[in-house]
Amino acid sequence: MEKRFLVLKFGGSNFKDFECYSEVKRKIGEVEEVFKDKHLVIVVSAAFGTTDKLLHALYNFRDQKVDSIIDEIYEFHLQVLNNRTDGYFESLFERIRELLTVVRILNKVPPFLKDEFLSHGEQINAYTLLKFIEDEDSRFELKDAGEWIITDGKFGNSTVLLEKTKEKIQSEINRWNGVHSIVPGFYGRSVEGDVTLLGRGGSDYTATTLGYSLDAEAVFLFKDVNGFLSCDPKVAESPYIVKSMSYDEADELSYFGAKVLQYNSIEPLRKSSIPLYVCSFDGVFDLNRCTRISDDKHVTESCVKSISYTDDVAVVQFKGRNLGRVPGVLGEISSKIAHGGVNIKFVITSQTSINLIVSKSALSDVLRIAETIRLDDIDEISYKIDKALIALVGHGMLDKHGIAAKVFSVLADNGINVEMISAGSNEVSFYLIIDRKDLEVSLRAIHRSLFENRVFSNIG
Amino acid sequence: MEKRFLVLKFGGSNFKDFECYSEVKRKIGEVEEVFKDKHLVIVVSAAFGTTDKLLHALYNFRDQKVDSIIDEIYEFHLQVLNNRTDGYFESLFERIRELLTVVRILNKVPPFLKDEFLSHGEQINAYTLLKFIEDEDSRFELKDAGEWIITDGKFGNSTVLLEKTKEKIQSEINRWNGVHSIVPGFYGRSVEGDVTLLGRGGSDYTATTLGYSLDAEAVFLFKDVNGFLSCDPKVAESPYIVKSMSYDEADELSYFGAKVLQYNSIEPLRKSSIPLYVCSFDGVFDLNRCTRISDDKHVTESCVKSISYTDDVAVVQFKGRNLGRVPGVLGEISSKIAHGGVNIKFVITSQTSINLIVSKSALSDVLRIAETIRLDDIDEISYKIDKALIALVGHGMLDKHGIAAKVFSVLADNGINVEMISAGSNEVSFYLIIDRKDLEVSLRAIHRSLFENRVFSNIG
Amino acid sequence: MEKRFLVLKFGGSNFKDFECYSEVKRKIGEVEEVFKDKHLVIVVSAAFGTTDKLLHALYNFRDQKVDSIIDEIYEFHLQVLNNRTDGYFESLFERIRELLTVVRILNKVPPFLKDEFLSHGEQINAYTLLKFIEDEDSRFELKDAGEWIITDGKFGNSTVLLEKTKEKIQSEINRWNGVHSIVPGFYGRSVEGDVTLLGRGGSDYTATTLGYSLDAEAVFLFKDVNGFLSCDPKVAESPYIVKSMSYDEADELSYFGAKVLQYNSIEPLRKSSIPLYVCSFDGVFDLNRCTRISDDKHVTESCVKSISYTDDVAVVQFKGRNLGRVPGVLGEISSKIAHGGVNIKFVITSQTSINLIVSKSALSDVLRIAETIRLDDIDEISYKIDKALIALVGHGMLDKHGIAAKVFSVLADNGINVEMISAGSNEVSFYLIIDRKDLEVSLRAIHRSLFENRVFSNIG
Amino acid sequence: MEKRFLVLKFGGSNFKDFECYSEVKRKIGEVEEVFKDKHLVIVVSAAFGTTDKLLHALYNFRDQKVDSIIDEIYEFHLQVLNNRTDGYFESLFERIRELLTVVRILNKVPPFLKDEFLSHGEQINAYTLLKFIEDEDSRFELKDAGEWIITDGKFGNSTVLLEKTKEKIQSEINRWNGVHSIVPGFYGRSVEGDVTLLGRGGSDYTATTLGYSLDAEAVFLFKDVNGFLSCDPKVAESPYIVKSMSYDEADELSYFGAKVLQYNSIEPLRKSSIPLYVCSFDGVFDLNRCTRISDDKHVTESCVKSISYTDDVAVVQFKGRNLGRVPGVLGEISSKIAHGGVNIKFVITSQTSINLIVSKSALSDVLRIAETIRLDDIDEISYKIDKALIALVGHGMLDKHGIAAKVFSVLADNGINVEMISAGSNEVSFYLIIDRKDLEVSLRAIHRSLFENRVFSNIG
Repeated sequence: MEKRFLVLKFGGSNFKDFECYSEVKRKIGEVEEVFKDKHLVIVVSAAFGTTDKLLHALYNFRDQKVDSIIDEIYEFHLQVLNNRTDGYFESLFERIRELLTVVRILNKVPPFLKDEFLSHGEQINAYTLLKFIEDEDSRFELKDAGEWIITDGKFGNSTVLLEKTKEKIQSEINRWNGVHSIVPGFYGRSVEGDVTLLGRGGSDYTATTLGYSLDAEAVFLFKDVNGFLSCDPKVAESPYIVKSMSYDEADELSYFGAKVLQYNSIEPLRKSSIPLYVCSFDGVFDLNRCTRISDDKHVTESCVKSISYTDDVAVVQFKGRNLGRVPGVLGEISSKIAHGGVNIKFVITSQTSINLIVSKSALSDVLRIAETIRLDDIDEISYKIDKALIALVGHGMLDKHGIAAKVFSVLADNGINVEMISAGSNEVSFYLIIDRKDLEVSLRAIHRSLFENRVFSNIG
Repeated sequence: MEKRFLVLKFGGSNFKDFECYSEVKRKIGEVEEVFKDKHLVIVVSAAFGTTDKLLHALYNFRDQKVDSIIDEIYEFHLQVLNNRTDGYFESLFERIRELLTVVRILNKVPPFLKDEFLSHGEQINAYTLLKFIEDEDSRFELKDAGEWIITDGKFGNSTVLLEKTKEKIQSEINRWNGVHSIVPGFYGRSVEGDVTLLGRGGSDYTATTLGYSLDAEAVFLFKDVNGFLSCDPKVAESPYIVKSMSYDEADELSYFGAKVLQYNSIEPLRKSSIPLYVCSFDGVFDLNRCTRISDDKHVTESCVKSISYTDDVAVVQFKGRNLGRVPGVLGEISSKIAHGGVNIKFVITSQTSINLIVSKSALSDVLRIAETIRLDDIDEISYKIDKALIALVGHGMLDKHGIAAKVFSVLADNGINVEMISAGSNEVSFYLIIDRKDLEVSLRAIHRSLFENRVFSNIG
Repeated sequence: MEKRFLVLKFGGSNFKDFECYSEVKRKIGEVEEVFKDKHLVIVVSAAFGTTDKLLHALYNFRDQKVDSIIDEIYEFHLQVLNNRTDGYFESLFERIRELLTVVRILNKVPPFLKDEFLSHGEQINAYTLLKFIEDEDSRFELKDAGEWIITDGKFGNSTVLLEKTKEKIQSEINRWNGVHSIVPGFYGRSVEGDVTLLGRGGSDYTATTLGYSLDAEAVFLFKDVNGFLSCDPKVAESPYIVKSMSYDEADELSYFGAKVLQYNSIEPLRKSSIPLYVCSFDGVFDLNRCTRISDDKHVTESCVKSISYTDDVAVVQFKGRNLGRVPGVLGEISSKIAHGGVNIKFVITSQTSINLIVSKSALSDVLRIAETIRLDDIDEISYKIDKALIALVGHGMLDKHGIAAKVFSVLADNGINVEMISAGSNEVSFYLIIDRKDLEVSLRAIHRSLFENRVFSNIG
Repeated sequence: MEKRFLVLKFGGSNFKDFECYSEVKRKIGEVEEVFKDKHLVIVVSAAFGTTDKLLHALYNFRDQKVDSIIDEIYEFHLQVLNNRTDGYFESLFERIRELLTVVRILNKVPPFLKDEFLSHGEQINAYTLLKFIEDEDSRFELKDAGEWIITDGKFGNSTVLLEKTKEKIQSEINRWNGVHSIVPGFYGRSVEGDVTLLGRGGSDYTATTLGYSLDAEAVFLFKDVNGFLSCDPKVAESPYIVKSMSYDEADELSYFGAKVLQYNSIEPLRKSSIPLYVCSFDGVFDLNRCTRISDDKHVTESCVKSISYTDDVAVVQFKGRNLGRVPGVLGEISSKIAHGGVNIKFVITSQTSINLIVSKSALSDVLRIAETIRLDDIDEISYKIDKALIALVGHGMLDKHGIAAKVFSVLADNGINVEMISAGSNEVSFYLIIDRKDLEVSLRAIHRSLFENRVFSNIG
């Protein structure tokens, strides 16, 4: 069956000022030019800075001055609209002000209200974009994400119920055919009817969810970066654009540190093998300048596609001479900790110790739970927080290419101790735990050693 | 308090023929010479090949010809004794024959009977040695391990109840003072009164248990190898003797593959910091030619003390995109598998998969249990059995010495894929999973790269 | 130490009209007369019907007409106050209206808001009573329950954190000394600062909580009934006032059906043996006409103190020939059901079946959970909902007094089938499950047979 | 399909002396007369006293005098056989002696050996009966229970794998057709090939297992009692024979105290509605003088069919004011206790306590486990052992017939305290817990009050 839809997502940084809206319009035109006869679905983040402003206003509600922040947001969008307001536009701001009234009456911010409140950044911007680009015979149409995207109802960080959402959309597919749709990102609605957010960066997730539900030909995320880079440019000297990646690689990267992609975004596309393009907003639209994420598991020369990192790690160690030999200790520890709602990033075990790597914020929970584990076989429980995790991501890293050797050589040359290594759990990831103080040096050194002699399109 | 006891253990290969008994006697004399005024405790394995012969006889009980195997064992020991039999010697063989009668009547081999049956190899040899070395005013005395060593009662592979055993021995310490004791290794007796074996190589465990219980100055294990080697001589070209090791290092080595030491043996000594010497039986007794195992955690030039390996590994992989994010999956899997009595060697996890490394014999159990785990989040379960595990053991390996780099370089140079890496769980171990077919090449290459230029006493 | 405090609680039915307030004032005077030199603590429910009105307004918020309900409540209290309003009085109604505004904006009723909203019934009435009875040199003072009573934060039905509350009150005991306090009942505040309700009838609980925290000499609950009766007057012809009861008896009665006392109320008093008097509001205050609840476990002639009942029962039966013999079935069923948040009233088991008696509202949950219990040993699961539970409460019932015989005789004489019997779990209760259609006849017959010939103060 | 088989079981008391064998032969003839053209399957217990003798011999194996016990058994059966021994007969005794040799060598009695050893009582008697009744053209044939009855392998007390057993028998049904089979009772064989006993009284279970597997028309158990009695004749003055009972009633009776029927025996018949007749061995065979156990749930005048009892009860009480309200306490307690392998007879709960009724032998286990239950909500754990359980069994007891009233009246008249009552869990049972010292008086009084005026066939 022919695929009729393309999903395009524009992030907040694409909406910085009046000029930007024109560029978004132009970009949409460029895509339309390349992919003729497709129905476009434009997913829109809040304008640059809006979410932070709304958040600030919400949490400083006692201060009447925050009303001027709302006014500021209003002015910005109104200006884009050339001062042509209308009832719908006004009603969105009216709602924002009503919700502020509510928190003032209640003297607190209930979680459900926060989600609805913040969703207005996207709602306003999507409507603004619609008004900006529509002309007389415009085929553009606004769709409320709350009507179409069904979530599990977890406030602040909900998961899309993918099948339910697809079913809903397919049951009214006629409303998507024949038009270009503009959809505010970042939120959906639970079965109970509450607006819930999809987590920071959730507009990516909105886009891939729609890609899946509409069985799109491709999903395009326009970023102010040139797709995925081989390393964080703040750390590595001149990172390269990764031209192509597998879903697995992108997934790994989105988990650990890489800010490019929201961690839930890959799943909907993997399910039906729809390619995802992460493209730079700057310059002319060119597929060759995007990172293409797909089923394709090719191995590059360096094997490593990208180097990610986080210093949000705490290592909790359980020691006991017989841990490995007494069945059940690992089960008991990990069950109890999971029961306490803590997510374990990964585990490194030997016959005499079990190490859990968790988020720093979870450390106190883990230690509290650990105390309740009365196992004779545990001699000692200790933890470390001044560590950092480096994740090398790429297919083929453990193959005969000597990547691991290069990495450890360069670390040894730089006098850096590696605390822990775990590799091979899946086919694309290689984790190192090192001292946090060594993080920058390590990243720079590893990046240089893996990528320096390659002939590649430098983004500089 | 002055330490009065020394424990010496002689393995089966020290009792190959008549000559050997003289050499054991001479070795005992040499030790006595070096450590004057100590009470010696001599732990004795069955004579070379005896345990295998007994096992063969037991499981072929229907064949009356196996009686001649018992006769063979009888003849061997009688010859050592210069044909001087006596009532006790005869009674041991009488018991063996009675037990064979029992299995013939029952037409099966009950587990408890097997343990008692096999213990006779050690009992006979200990008595034979006693008779061989005692002269008129001999201070040597036989002690029945079943009277002194108290076990948890698990047939075939029991654990010593260390504190109970020490208490028992200390309560009658006078019977150990003033004499040299000869003790059959390999078995003890449960609280219920059953003879139970301490697992293959269990005489080492007997020796260290007695070392702990008698608060010995040191324990000496005489082997037909020169202490711990830097690698298996069957694989590496010219391995070195490791001069000194920490308990942790020896523990790691005994878990994975190294046949030198039974895996339970370190524990009793670690508890009271008693040094263990693993010495070659050949040549004159010389502490400098033994591997000394103690609290001392020194770092050698290569960091790695020894390279061990096993191909008794099966890797079971659970894949699921959300495994890392859904708390409880690891707990559920490892609990269920532990509940099924399976020991997990180690675990390698990432956000999208959980890999359990188990013994091959446990694979079918793990797969059966895995099927009962109805977790939505598991997409796929697979396994691999053509793998091998290499363990590098030594303090300081992950420090700035570039050991990891050397290892991965040499593997890459030899075109070897590494499947999995786990390092840093404790301070002394570094595990690699590779294809079994690459095992020998890998071991040889790693050994060469780590040890080749060192100035060391080559054992060749 | 001398006990300085008395707690008096007046329920909603004591505040039906203007006259009532005078009577409450007179009643307080009477108590003051009897117990001289005590500091009174007056706990006040919302005026008659107010809570229902507030609830109605809250859930019909879309209908602007509900504003007139608020007006009605306002008018009622204003009239009591002889039209003397003031800032505080107005502010309470202002808050009610603000909260209505909030639910209108949100278009739903968040649980936390409901609790704060409903608490205004008590707040208004307590302030009204204060204003009503205070004169020039009045020693009466209003205390906000939200400042003193600390709850576990469960909206709608929270439990008081007794020790925390007592600590708080004792730390500022000077503010309670030397004055008579008026305290709105029914609510407290969580550690997080939310107003939370104590469940229907929660003002009783407020009173006993204050009794405990102030180490009161006694707590008096004024009801429009004459204390505990031997049976519900709607059913039994002429029930008697129970003169005295043990805490255990009162506890049992408050669990099953008896509306006199909130089920949490006994606990605070039992902890420090403070007597509770349940008194009729009508007539002159007379300790002899109250039911006294205390440590005293005396046995009356009929043994049974009171007969209670409920038809809110569902019986779920698990059948399986081996249920009694297979350890673990009961554990598995009850654990799973508890995990599902369902409270089991009681359990009746035999070797071949397990019967759970639960609230009707929990039935669907239990059945849903039951389906997930894959136990080979369960052959059949069935349920019944047309049943009623009768609880006979009193010490000594199973002793040689023939009470059980009387009860079963009279039921048999009336042709009534008993479905289940459970007695003796504790010392005071005897449960019967019968058909709901037989409930009234049974109650009347049992009451007559147990109480008819007794010489007692008839309340008629 | 026509049912071709009848199963007859003769217990040990039917084989007391030489005369008995003639009577058994006659009884078989009588049954053959009544049910023409049926294939008889005769299940045989060990001769009177044989099992006890074997047990004595086994556990006193060190005493060579026990050999004479075996001789005694040999002589008894040889006499029945008129001194005609043969190879098979001798081989059975040979095996007994071999097994005694084994325990002497091992100096202990392994569980598996005990089962095989004891099964010889039945094997010998079945062969003896075969030889006794077979004549020239005899159609009688011996069948080894170990070949046909497949068990779960639990030594001493195994459960038959009913479907596997039926499958086995049906797959070779031709070997059962056309002959009368004689089958030793009490044992079967596990899948692993071990002989395992079916528990005390297990020959009943053998008979009903064969009834099920052969789809028999009926099963007859010949006892030295007249079927089920209304009460234990040692206690009640003149108990009646119960003419008819439902499977449920018989099941209940077999659980609690009644020695007539092994507790597993009903199950196989219930599955295919085969009637079971419990008949007196004395007198002429007359169906009307047997207790018929079937699907028929008729209600008798007294409702109660039989009164059973046991003083093997311990009551463990957990008190805590909130037990009933805190979900999970019951689950936690009963799970832990089940996990400890303890069978809970039944449970009596209220809102403030949980009472477990267990076997006395389990008390120490329960208390030990109870200590490990660290539940805040449990205030106190206590127990009682001087109690007895009375079970009244019969359909319709709780109906309008006033049975409960009669029972409680007569207990009150006799000044007996009832500690606990539980009734209605299933349709046939009513449990009372009383003081053990009151047991006899209670049983006699209850029996008299329920049965005294009935016109029934007195067995006196």
